[in-house]
Amino acid sequence: MSSLDSVLSRLDDRLDGALDHLKALIAIPSISTDPDYAGACRQAAEWLKKDLAEIGFEASVRETPGHPMVVAHHDGAGPDAPHALFYGHYDVQPVDPISEWNSDPFQSEIVERDGRQVITGRGAADDKGQLMTFVEACRALIAETGTLPCRVTILFEGEEESGSPSLLPFIEANKEELKADFALVCDTNMWDAETPAISGGLRGLVGEEITIHAADRDLHSGYYGGAAANPLQILSSILGAMHDETGRVTIKNFYEGVNETPDDIKKSWDALDLTPDGFLGSIGLSKPSGEAGRSIAELTWARPTAEINGISGGYTGEGFKTVIPAKATAKVSFRLVHDQDPDAIRENFRHFVESHLPADCTVEFHPHGGSPAVQLPYQSSLLTTAKQALTEEWNVEAPIIGMGGSIPIVGTFQNELGMESLLVGFGLADDRIHSPNEKYGLTSFHKGMRSWARILTALARRGS
Amino acid sequence: MSSLDSVLSRLDDRLDGALDHLKALIAIPSISTDPDYAGACRQAAEWLKKDLAEIGFEASVRETPGHPMVVAHHDGAGPDAPHALFYGHYDVQPVDPISEWNSDPFQSEIVERDGRQVITGRGAADDKGQLMTFVEACRALIAETGTLPCRVTILFEGEEESGSPSLLPFIEANKEELKADFALVCDTNMWDAETPAISGGLRGLVGEEITIHAADRDLHSGYYGGAAANPLQILSSILGAMHDETGRVTIKNFYEGVNETPDDIKKSWDALDLTPDGFLGSIGLSKPSGEAGRSIAELTWARPTAEINGISGGYTGEGFKTVIPAKATAKVSFRLVHDQDPDAIRENFRHFVESHLPADCTVEFHPHGGSPAVQLPYQSSLLTTAKQALTEEWNVEAPIIGMGGSIPIVGTFQNELGMESLLVGFGLADDRIHSPNEKYGLTSFHKGMRSWARILTALARRGS
Repeated sequence: MSSLDSVLSRLDDRLDGALDHLKALIAIPSISTDPDYAGACRQAAEWLKKDLAEIGFEASVRETPGHPMVVAHHDGAGPDAPHALFYGHYDVQPVDPISEWNSDPFQSEIVERDGRQVITGRGAADDKGQLMTFVEACRALIAETGTLPCRVTILFEGEEESGSPSLLPFIEANKEELKADFALVCDTNMWDAETPAISGGLRGLVGEEITIHAADRDLHSGYYGGAAANPLQILSSILGAMHDETGRVTIKNFYEGVNETPDDIKKSWDALDLTPDGFLGSIGLSKPSGEAGRSIAELTWARPTAEINGISGGYTGEGFKTVIPAKATAKVSFRLVHDQDPDAIRENFRHFVESHLPADCTVEFHPHGGSPAVQLPYQSSLLTTAKQALTEEWNVEAPIIGMGGSIPIVGTFQNELGMESLLVGFGLADDRIHSPNEKYGLTSFHKGMRSWARILTALARRGS
Repeated sequence: MSSLDSVLSRLDDRLDGALDHLKALIAIPSISTDPDYAGACRQAAEWLKKDLAEIGFEASVRETPGHPMVVAHHDGAGPDAPHALFYGHYDVQPVDPISEWNSDPFQSEIVERDGRQVITGRGAADDKGQLMTFVEACRALIAETGTLPCRVTILFEGEEESGSPSLLPFIEANKEELKADFALVCDTNMWDAETPAISGGLRGLVGEEITIHAADRDLHSGYYGGAAANPLQILSSILGAMHDETGRVTIKNFYEGVNETPDDIKKSWDALDLTPDGFLGSIGLSKPSGEAGRSIAELTWARPTAEINGISGGYTGEGFKTVIPAKATAKVSFRLVHDQDPDAIRENFRHFVESHLPADCTVEFHPHGGSPAVQLPYQSSLLTTAKQALTEEWNVEAPIIGMGGSIPIVGTFQNELGMESLLVGFGLADDRIHSPNEKYGLTSFHKGMRSWARILTALARRGS
């Protein structure tokens, strides 16, 4: 029996013990957005520190202006072993509306749901269940082999559900301590219940609010209509010109830094059978919008977007009012891919707006954050090694997919610490994270632990 | 001394008595929008009926589902004399905020304001002061000549400030009784304090609400952005395409029924010195929007518009939310001129929207009323006769101007009763109608009475 086999056997044999650990962590109501639960957040951090210390990590609870961080180190197989930084978060979403829960959100139960065994509770999936797959893998590896195949640093934060205000300052202040060869993040989903997935790219995000001002007061459209500028009309005209007929964004230099997806990756995405009917049918649509001639996978993972997220202006109540408003506002956001520069996108959008603005009017811009996309090289050996390990565990090839959304920490790891991130998670789309009756599949938990044991072992073999 | 001269002298001599009448009418708080004042509305109607009966009219208070109408007839110089229908309204706007009034809104005072004598009070201008100019002219004509030069029917309504719900049904039900050769309406302004004006045209209005529906729920723009249709983007694109670069409306057949303004009228408007600086400067603008190369007078009086009066959709609160909303709504209105057909405009706009709609999306239309424009022939003898009479009274030529807004009653007179309307009023832009401290100039009141005496006399001479 190889040492990996014995580790995997141990994980099989002690699944109940691992579930008891997870239940104990879920029982701590570490809701980060509610000040009443600040004590519980600290308690969760202390619980994790103690657990990691028991395994053999040098673990500490570290203060921030908000909820504390947990940082833990293990030297693993020694200075020549590759060094992994594992990231997760111990804080959870609020539980409202509590009346919609079928059981106590903080008293986990093992129940059957839709034919599968699951563990219930707030944070069961997001992110306590997911982070414990890694902790349990470490526990088993150390118990069976006396050490870890890699050097491992663990970083758990307690503010992920509150926008992570302390995370970037903490990383900047502790760069040397946190720097590793690569990062491991366990906060994403599988492709489906049988197929794990690796996220090879995350889109970036730029948010911008624009307000068009015209007259210094609201006007009556009978008296002034036809002669006075209408900010709603100007706003519509500007935002309506943001896309051409083929769905391409018309802002100058918008596609600078956007790469074409390699053919073999496109082919692997096509094999996923992510069809317009399947992807859009469930939300009442059938035809992809956006750039013509691109697949759903490309459109949502590998192409940038310009979206209007909100418009307000004029009279919007019951009935009608023939007003020409003094101003009109829109919230606009851009999903970025590859090497698009958030600052340049914002700048180019502002120029676009200004260049369409009539003489008399003014525009006010208000930035709402920006983060670049993260794209791992599709041939990165971090990805291919993890992919092989996952395939061995799940007996099916793990696709390297994109993510339409953003996980800012991944960009921070890349930009602040110069590290690639491996995003592997075992959540499922129906885990009801952020909603009542959150759950995590026992298969996700069990095979997730086994997957991390395989991945850490494989990455150690690959070398740093 | 001609009989007209003696009538004018009587109006001069008895100005104080006329003011006492007006004060008595203003003292009745006939606020039509507030059910608490329903009794006061009836009281105002009764007061007018009594006053008209005393003068010699056959007057009656007539029931409606809302506040009553006052209808009064005078045979004047007999069956061959031209027949005028005079329209006014006895109801007034609410007085809130009462704390901003410098005197009791229902206890009129004669005070000096900005160097001019004025009478204060709610309704002093809108429309009690204005309608009493006509009543007083009739009183003096009958007192001095024994009759009126024209046959006169008077219609006073009590719901003008509440949208006139009973007016059209009442007119339809009493067509024969109300039909006359032409209508006189006294609810408009002078050009300036020295110059009376005749409104030769009123723009019509079509209101339409559109809601674009895409997905059956709000979507996260990270997950779906790039593949799912965004109703805000579709709405912007459609409404943004509603005007071309020269400010012309691009809806098919939109300009059908729009006539060019005759050169002599354009010349007379140019003489009014209605400059972009003067008209737009006071609201913080300087450049006319709308169709390029047209004067302010043309743009606001003789050209149609398409205006967005409100847009709502997506997230519009503080901060940012990267949502793709399920729907987006706009309120759009059109000011019509000349022979534009409201139904055709609505139909063509709906086609315009539908033809721009992507395959997957649907649109919901909700109409908000429509009324055609009213345009008197610029050479109408009703206008030229009244213009001559006004010039004699004010010693300055009265311009025939347009009105950007709508007075629906005028369209009703034209369409239901086949009558042209003469719109002459003596209000000033600073009368503060609908606001605290409403007033009416004593010059407006005094010379307004004299103007009506002259106009009725001149119209009788013109023949029917």
